[in-house]
Amino acid sequence: MNMNETLESVFPEMIEWRRHMHRNPELSYYESETAAYVAERLLAWGLEVRTFAGKGHGVVARLEGRNAGPTVALRADMDALPIQDEKACEYASTVPGVMHACGHDAHTSTLLAVAKTLSRHRDSLNGTVVFLFQPAEETTPGGALGMIEDGALDGVDVVYGIHLWTPFEVGTAACKPGPMMAAADEFVIEIKGKGGHGGLPHEAIDSVFVASQLVVNLQSIVSRSADPTEPCVVSVGSIHGGTTFNVIAETATLKGTVRTFHPDLRSMVKDRLETIVRQTCLMHGATYTLDYKMGYLPVINHAEEADRFLRTAPQTFGEAGTKLSPLIMAGEDYAYYLEQIPGCFMFVGAGNRERGIVYPHHHPRFDIDENAMLHAAKLFVSMTLDYMNEYRTSR
Amino acid sequence: MNMNETLESVFPEMIEWRRHMHRNPELSYYESETAAYVAERLLAWGLEVRTFAGKGHGVVARLEGRNAGPTVALRADMDALPIQDEKACEYASTVPGVMHACGHDAHTSTLLAVAKTLSRHRDSLNGTVVFLFQPAEETTPGGALGMIEDGALDGVDVVYGIHLWTPFEVGTAACKPGPMMAAADEFVIEIKGKGGHGGLPHEAIDSVFVASQLVVNLQSIVSRSADPTEPCVVSVGSIHGGTTFNVIAETATLKGTVRTFHPDLRSMVKDRLETIVRQTCLMHGATYTLDYKMGYLPVINHAEEADRFLRTAPQTFGEAGTKLSPLIMAGEDYAYYLEQIPGCFMFVGAGNRERGIVYPHHHPRFDIDENAMLHAAKLFVSMTLDYMNEYRTSR
Amino acid sequence: MNMNETLESVFPEMIEWRRHMHRNPELSYYESETAAYVAERLLAWGLEVRTFAGKGHGVVARLEGRNAGPTVALRADMDALPIQDEKACEYASTVPGVMHACGHDAHTSTLLAVAKTLSRHRDSLNGTVVFLFQPAEETTPGGALGMIEDGALDGVDVVYGIHLWTPFEVGTAACKPGPMMAAADEFVIEIKGKGGHGGLPHEAIDSVFVASQLVVNLQSIVSRSADPTEPCVVSVGSIHGGTTFNVIAETATLKGTVRTFHPDLRSMVKDRLETIVRQTCLMHGATYTLDYKMGYLPVINHAEEADRFLRTAPQTFGEAGTKLSPLIMAGEDYAYYLEQIPGCFMFVGAGNRERGIVYPHHHPRFDIDENAMLHAAKLFVSMTLDYMNEYRTSR
Amino acid sequence: MNMNETLESVFPEMIEWRRHMHRNPELSYYESETAAYVAERLLAWGLEVRTFAGKGHGVVARLEGRNAGPTVALRADMDALPIQDEKACEYASTVPGVMHACGHDAHTSTLLAVAKTLSRHRDSLNGTVVFLFQPAEETTPGGALGMIEDGALDGVDVVYGIHLWTPFEVGTAACKPGPMMAAADEFVIEIKGKGGHGGLPHEAIDSVFVASQLVVNLQSIVSRSADPTEPCVVSVGSIHGGTTFNVIAETATLKGTVRTFHPDLRSMVKDRLETIVRQTCLMHGATYTLDYKMGYLPVINHAEEADRFLRTAPQTFGEAGTKLSPLIMAGEDYAYYLEQIPGCFMFVGAGNRERGIVYPHHHPRFDIDENAMLHAAKLFVSMTLDYMNEYRTSR
Repeated sequence: MNMNETLESVFPEMIEWRRHMHRNPELSYYESETAAYVAERLLAWGLEVRTFAGKGHGVVARLEGRNAGPTVALRADMDALPIQDEKACEYASTVPGVMHACGHDAHTSTLLAVAKTLSRHRDSLNGTVVFLFQPAEETTPGGALGMIEDGALDGVDVVYGIHLWTPFEVGTAACKPGPMMAAADEFVIEIKGKGGHGGLPHEAIDSVFVASQLVVNLQSIVSRSADPTEPCVVSVGSIHGGTTFNVIAETATLKGTVRTFHPDLRSMVKDRLETIVRQTCLMHGATYTLDYKMGYLPVINHAEEADRFLRTAPQTFGEAGTKLSPLIMAGEDYAYYLEQIPGCFMFVGAGNRERGIVYPHHHPRFDIDENAMLHAAKLFVSMTLDYMNEYRTSR
Repeated sequence: MNMNETLESVFPEMIEWRRHMHRNPELSYYESETAAYVAERLLAWGLEVRTFAGKGHGVVARLEGRNAGPTVALRADMDALPIQDEKACEYASTVPGVMHACGHDAHTSTLLAVAKTLSRHRDSLNGTVVFLFQPAEETTPGGALGMIEDGALDGVDVVYGIHLWTPFEVGTAACKPGPMMAAADEFVIEIKGKGGHGGLPHEAIDSVFVASQLVVNLQSIVSRSADPTEPCVVSVGSIHGGTTFNVIAETATLKGTVRTFHPDLRSMVKDRLETIVRQTCLMHGATYTLDYKMGYLPVINHAEEADRFLRTAPQTFGEAGTKLSPLIMAGEDYAYYLEQIPGCFMFVGAGNRERGIVYPHHHPRFDIDENAMLHAAKLFVSMTLDYMNEYRTSR
Repeated sequence: MNMNETLESVFPEMIEWRRHMHRNPELSYYESETAAYVAERLLAWGLEVRTFAGKGHGVVARLEGRNAGPTVALRADMDALPIQDEKACEYASTVPGVMHACGHDAHTSTLLAVAKTLSRHRDSLNGTVVFLFQPAEETTPGGALGMIEDGALDGVDVVYGIHLWTPFEVGTAACKPGPMMAAADEFVIEIKGKGGHGGLPHEAIDSVFVASQLVVNLQSIVSRSADPTEPCVVSVGSIHGGTTFNVIAETATLKGTVRTFHPDLRSMVKDRLETIVRQTCLMHGATYTLDYKMGYLPVINHAEEADRFLRTAPQTFGEAGTKLSPLIMAGEDYAYYLEQIPGCFMFVGAGNRERGIVYPHHHPRFDIDENAMLHAAKLFVSMTLDYMNEYRTSR
Repeated sequence: MNMNETLESVFPEMIEWRRHMHRNPELSYYESETAAYVAERLLAWGLEVRTFAGKGHGVVARLEGRNAGPTVALRADMDALPIQDEKACEYASTVPGVMHACGHDAHTSTLLAVAKTLSRHRDSLNGTVVFLFQPAEETTPGGALGMIEDGALDGVDVVYGIHLWTPFEVGTAACKPGPMMAAADEFVIEIKGKGGHGGLPHEAIDSVFVASQLVVNLQSIVSRSADPTEPCVVSVGSIHGGTTFNVIAETATLKGTVRTFHPDLRSMVKDRLETIVRQTCLMHGATYTLDYKMGYLPVINHAEEADRFLRTAPQTFGEAGTKLSPLIMAGEDYAYYLEQIPGCFMFVGAGNRERGIVYPHHHPRFDIDENAMLHAAKLFVSMTLDYMNEYRTSR
């Protein structure tokens, strides 16, 4: 069996692993069971495994090939989201309010399959592969930084990562040189008005009204203040204020995210947001706290590795299925790996219009076409082998 | 001891009762322990007590005077609110998220004191007094309707109720003939958009944004559509949507209240609210459900009983402290008693600027000047005696 | 012929005068031809006439009765509004953009008819009547102040004024003791942003957007900050910014009015308005000027004269047609006369649902039922005679 | 003298021409005097001139070189904008409310200089040059379409156009292959409410309020509905409603522009705009008319001609001054020429920070560094000669 055949033979297990994790999702920084599940398998296959990596639930495994060569790191993320699963299927989440709505379960399963496969083909491996199972991709500061501080990239020559992506149809893959995914900042705004009786608004300061007007006012950052040729998003993901119908709420809380690619725009948006929060609150006599966390850097692919993708991906996806990626407004703490060493991040199509797999990431009905996991595993393997071969040839 | 002296001697107990209830607040429809606490005392003082009145936690007690005469009902309410107590004092609420932020604890304590006092002066009582301790004033449909259906007003000639009121300074009392407190409707709006990734707003329908714009749009009902000479309030008491910063929320929920005095305006506001909800949602492709509950009727005092107040209250508050009440935007299910039989509802000042007792009703720091309880008890007694005497004289 | 018969005989002329003035409206402070038209007639009827009163286009006429007695002033206003007449009738305005959309033409015609009638009945008049035809009621500071400074009320014992009122049906009249019409303030806000290309909003500061958001933000003054039991209006009557579709406007101008009855509320609204203007502009980096003119005082009728109305009006309107007026949000510089001497202001119904005379004051299709002029003239006469008789009797 | 030397010798005249036109701006479709000014000069220099081209004020001139060769069209636009000039300089506009705030005066002057220069160097010209002075670039449907229908491109092989651009510093030039300038649509929204008295909002439908809320609501098209990676602008350039402070305005009018590059997005924005206008008006009982004019196509440069720019421009601007243009949100009816034949549109830097020439296009203080005209003239000449030479060589 060649490597692809081995991968194909492992596919039924990939589905089983993924569905197990899908049923048992764990929030960022709480991936203890997922990490144990991963480590157990890696150990069984004879890899050198380090758990509690990144001072959290990271798992780093190492597989030395028979022959000397470069060290290639492959990365998956393991955490789920605070979303209530609304799918009706046998592998739906069993944890109320928590869900793998971004496909990290499938990323983990994919990387497990690559590990199992390469461990069987160690004899033909010209170098070392490091498997990075990182925690907490969804929540700043993100698990990648801890992994790096903990030495996960020590001695590594190149790093590859893959995101299964439902907006792209299954059977395709995409990458681009340079900026590909956005800087993703996070903000929390707590507005404090003055509670009171619902029938006596003039004796209170209505924090629900102030918060609502603020959400409306924030729209102008994108619509009026940002250069229209520069991608920019300001989204308020949650708003919470008040407890009942006839009491004016003393406080209201907004949480949201800012997405940009350019540092000047990023800093302008932060300034505008602060100004709009301040003036909206002053307008109504409310006070506030604003916690603005600069989040992940933009993902900037190294040109040489993006080229490798364009050259290598057709083995799995054909020329027609190999795409130049558009800019993606999602953020990824994978950016921190690329800040350290060469590499690239790749998308593997996981949507399937015909089969109704059409929900966007972070949607309560999110699902993937599981065939995408096999495609992703093949892409990881082909990128790894190509790098190792080139390395050898270039000596 | 005359009755007022007896009341004064009971005052230390009133404080104790009130603080006990303040520490142990119970939400509307869940006043089981408060009702038991009340009933225990009434029984001890020899009153005829019926519990589980109004098919809930109502308590109805009956005290027949030595001499024949009319039947006067006095009413207190017992429920608390879903507000987190933010006071720092020894009698602050011990129940997280629940608080006597409207003074019903003091109403109950006041009526207990009146019952204890009158039970000691039964010999000089020319008629019967019915004590109504009702549940669930804060939440529609309200406890009063159940009490009435259950016969609490059977054979009753007149009904009096009192609200301790912090916007009025301690040492004053107020009433007015005709409309005095507002009709209080309740609405719940659930907005359904389409969840998605915070960085990809164009693939989602942002229910937090739609809900926020709706709150802003609702302001125009009062500012543009209502006759400015007709009191009108539309307040959104709570807004809840989304779980985290980087996910666009699929749903958001608003709860609020409408306050009016005039039936035409009430119906106009309901229509405008429905229109604004519908068009705001249609504007953004969101769907919604709107549950609009017609709440309490306006409190309309009987002219003769309001006159009795103006005549009687000076015994306790002096001429200077006896006021003609302004219109009050709060609602009261006491309105239903007045729909059945003559009577009036009265305010007793419970604020104290000097001592910092200034927070409005339903505020997390709400408190009362406890002296107001003694004043209220005296007012109850003087109204009762005046009615009985007049009744006797008019025969 | 008694006085009412004389008035009736003058009615065809009243219509003619009114329609002439309706065709030839003049804006506040520019009523030169109307004043000349009025003066010409008064002189012809033998009254003592002073023109250019109030240092403007005021006309003051004086008619001494045969017998000694008190001096009664009757007041009409003569100015029109900057509104384009949209009526299709033979007496529609011939002046583009100017229209008698408030009925001042009919007020003037009414007072002329009263003057003509009383001048014919001078023998039976027990006192003096002063006719005040004032300019500029529609625009602050208003013509009344100038008239007063000019001595128009010197030696006058009481003053009466009437407003024909289409919201009230023809055949009715209304008055009330105490506050009846609102304080009417005026504001002009000029917003300065930064002009630019319509496709490059980030290089400009969009004054049209800032002005629009400001109009929306101002709604909260009434909906959230004003005591709902206190009548309050904030209206923006005009907004103007920009010249063309593809240029971002450097400046935008708002004009509006504030209506209140209570001085504390009036001052609160002014403060809130300033705060909202300031913070909205600061939010977007725009600058502004705000010119807030404290306008007319509220019209506060003297109780004794309002009582006279209630007693006297039934002669013309019957008991059923004589009403207690509600609060009216319109302002009137008539307030300044009442600040000086006793008197009252009265409404005479001028709407007619059946005949389609239903448009509110200041509407481009505003019209009156002309019969109301005759009613108003009779009311003026009956109030005058009643006052003179009472005066005589009380001596 | 070589051509560049001739151009330099003409520079003082260029300034004189430009300033003459700057003082005497003419609005789109009214460029009669500018066209006459242009034609007079072209005739004097011996060119074949056709006036009233494009069934308007277009001027088309033709210059055949001594030697056979291809036909190259060069284009300038001549119209000004409805903006009040706020510059204080001797060449400021003398026409109230009209201004060359986009530099078309300089475009015209530049093309005149090229015509004068090439007419002197006819002997060394290997082909024909057609000079297109078009009217009405600023207002749809634009003057270009008329010019094309009128045959202005007949027999033309390639077309070049230049925009002087103050956001780019003088001494630079920019172009890019493919989409470079936006599709520019135009909309006019007339909102009809119901006029009334400023103090009686509940009897009116406030078109100023509805229009303002609409401007705020339109922001969500860009902030929430458009793909953030696709440039998109919705700007409201003007808002007009109402005449005075105390009358609620019956009607209000908005004019604005939409800028996009992608046809799907363009159509989505049009749909969203219609929906938001409809629902906002329905929400308040107002009616409306919406006139949405699909405006200019995006400017899409032919790759080969953009390459010629990158190759040729360094002769004038050096390598450092020759830039790849970003996407520009402004529209240009030059797009229609490129729809017909090969060519490109180019920007020539005209800002000068040091000298305070920093105002964006369409700003009331807009001005250019006049040296940019000489640069632009040189660029026109070098593009023309390069095309002719290549044409010759390729035969």
